[in-house]
Amino acid sequence: MEILRSIDEMKTYSKKLHVDGRKIGFVPTMGYLHEGHLSLVKRSHQENDATVVSIFVNPIQFGKGEDLACYPRDEKRDLKMIEPFVSAVFVPDASEMYPEGFVTFVEVGELTNSLCGRFRPGHFRGVATVVLKLLNIVNPDMAYFGKKDYQQFRVIERMVRDLNLSVEIIPCEIIREQSGLAMSSRNVYLSDKENGDAAVIHKALLDGKNDVLNGEKYSSKVTNHIESLLRTAESLKKIDYVSVVNPYTLQDVDTIEDNVVILIAAYFGNARLIDNIEVDKPAHE
Amino acid sequence: MEILRSIDEMKTYSKKLHVDGRKIGFVPTMGYLHEGHLSLVKRSHQENDATVVSIFVNPIQFGKGEDLACYPRDEKRDLKMIEPFVSAVFVPDASEMYPEGFVTFVEVGELTNSLCGRFRPGHFRGVATVVLKLLNIVNPDMAYFGKKDYQQFRVIERMVRDLNLSVEIIPCEIIREQSGLAMSSRNVYLSDKENGDAAVIHKALLDGKNDVLNGEKYSSKVTNHIESLLRTAESLKKIDYVSVVNPYTLQDVDTIEDNVVILIAAYFGNARLIDNIEVDKPAHE
Repeated sequence: MEILRSIDEMKTYSKKLHVDGRKIGFVPTMGYLHEGHLSLVKRSHQENDATVVSIFVNPIQFGKGEDLACYPRDEKRDLKMIEPFVSAVFVPDASEMYPEGFVTFVEVGELTNSLCGRFRPGHFRGVATVVLKLLNIVNPDMAYFGKKDYQQFRVIERMVRDLNLSVEIIPCEIIREQSGLAMSSRNVYLSDKENGDAAVIHKALLDGKNDVLNGEKYSSKVTNHIESLLRTAESLKKIDYVSVVNPYTLQDVDTIEDNVVILIAAYFGNARLIDNIEVDKPAHE
Repeated sequence: MEILRSIDEMKTYSKKLHVDGRKIGFVPTMGYLHEGHLSLVKRSHQENDATVVSIFVNPIQFGKGEDLACYPRDEKRDLKMIEPFVSAVFVPDASEMYPEGFVTFVEVGELTNSLCGRFRPGHFRGVATVVLKLLNIVNPDMAYFGKKDYQQFRVIERMVRDLNLSVEIIPCEIIREQSGLAMSSRNVYLSDKENGDAAVIHKALLDGKNDVLNGEKYSSKVTNHIESLLRTAESLKKIDYVSVVNPYTLQDVDTIEDNVVILIAAYFGNARLIDNIEVDKPAHE
């Protein structure tokens, strides 16, 4: 496994693979890898001739007062975990990605205003910009994104379509702890008690999904039910949102008549956790 | 010469050229071609194995009340003019470039706030976005831009650097009428009298450059001199700006101590004309 730290090295490496006719799969990460990341890496390994993973804690997607400074890092462990499946890992530092005079940003319009976009202004601008840069640097045929970050996946998918990039974006299923808690690098912030309590998130999403499948048409009923379940957890500190949205526009749905996604963002202790569940409405009789 | 109207056709065509190891030069245009465009096309033809020209009047770079509806078009004449030098011409329509649900835009920060950016809000956002799309679709090795649109050239150059695109941006010299008037598709809006009067723009720029080369250090002296020359023209309707700026930041320079660019935007009749001149300061003694 090659460890590449400069953009030029990464571009040269990728170009050589393409000249040799090899298909490149790409998994962008912020490191501190877990089974969720690994599932993407393994899938890319199966579906491509070479897999590139990037590890880069992207400063421009963190807001003021967010956890950039304390975001967990362990490069050594990360490299060891992915080595069996990966041809090259791209590990630039921030000055390589954002040299002096950097001024260019990508905005993905209304998809970034709802959900986490409301609570983290500028976050998706930072995500879209770094992913576009990474796609231009790595130039993959396929790029893999976990659906735990559902809004991120839709934003990237739309950016790729709107800007006519040639990469194929592959969404991957959420990987969970035994308890149902969605895997996240930020779970390390949770105490044992908080970690146990946070299992309620997935349980509440399953209950909400059941409500819809059982015929509930009003989103407000579903979100009220989910919020009341979340509030049974002692370590719940704050709910940012519980929302039922259209999967493509990510806008709130009042009356559920088609496929929807239910999403939650909530704080357990100091950790802001997100999770979601897709609900395919059964065909009308 | 192939005439390609869909993005898929254009991508396939370009991919085939690259698989064959051929180097692609690209000249993006809004059509109604003149000798200025042709100089770019000929240079690309000399420097590459294949040249692609795009003809697309990009709606998102026109503001309200600007000349989108009446922007001059003559596809037949355009195609004939470039045919000897060009392998393929890409002529998409607006719905192909901006399908329903299009929401993604590129912002190139402070470079777009000065000069024309002050008078045409959103213009460079539209330019950067369409050029990024075209570069992704055509995937050229080199792309050619005229320096008549100096701010546009610098914005694109910065975008390409910041987003890590692999294309090389080639700036090309301004081509002028016999009178010195910079060639522009918009010159067609000028009456004979206005066209004659507009020759003052280049003359004033040359005088301003001379002032600097003769030791004038104060930009305000240079711009005042240029404005007074412009105001001698009967058909001058309005001056948007006369500015002395740093070539890279495009910010106003008060005291001239290094290379600068002098730029003008002014209306003659209903035509908004722009022009500029680079001034390399002689080395200090």
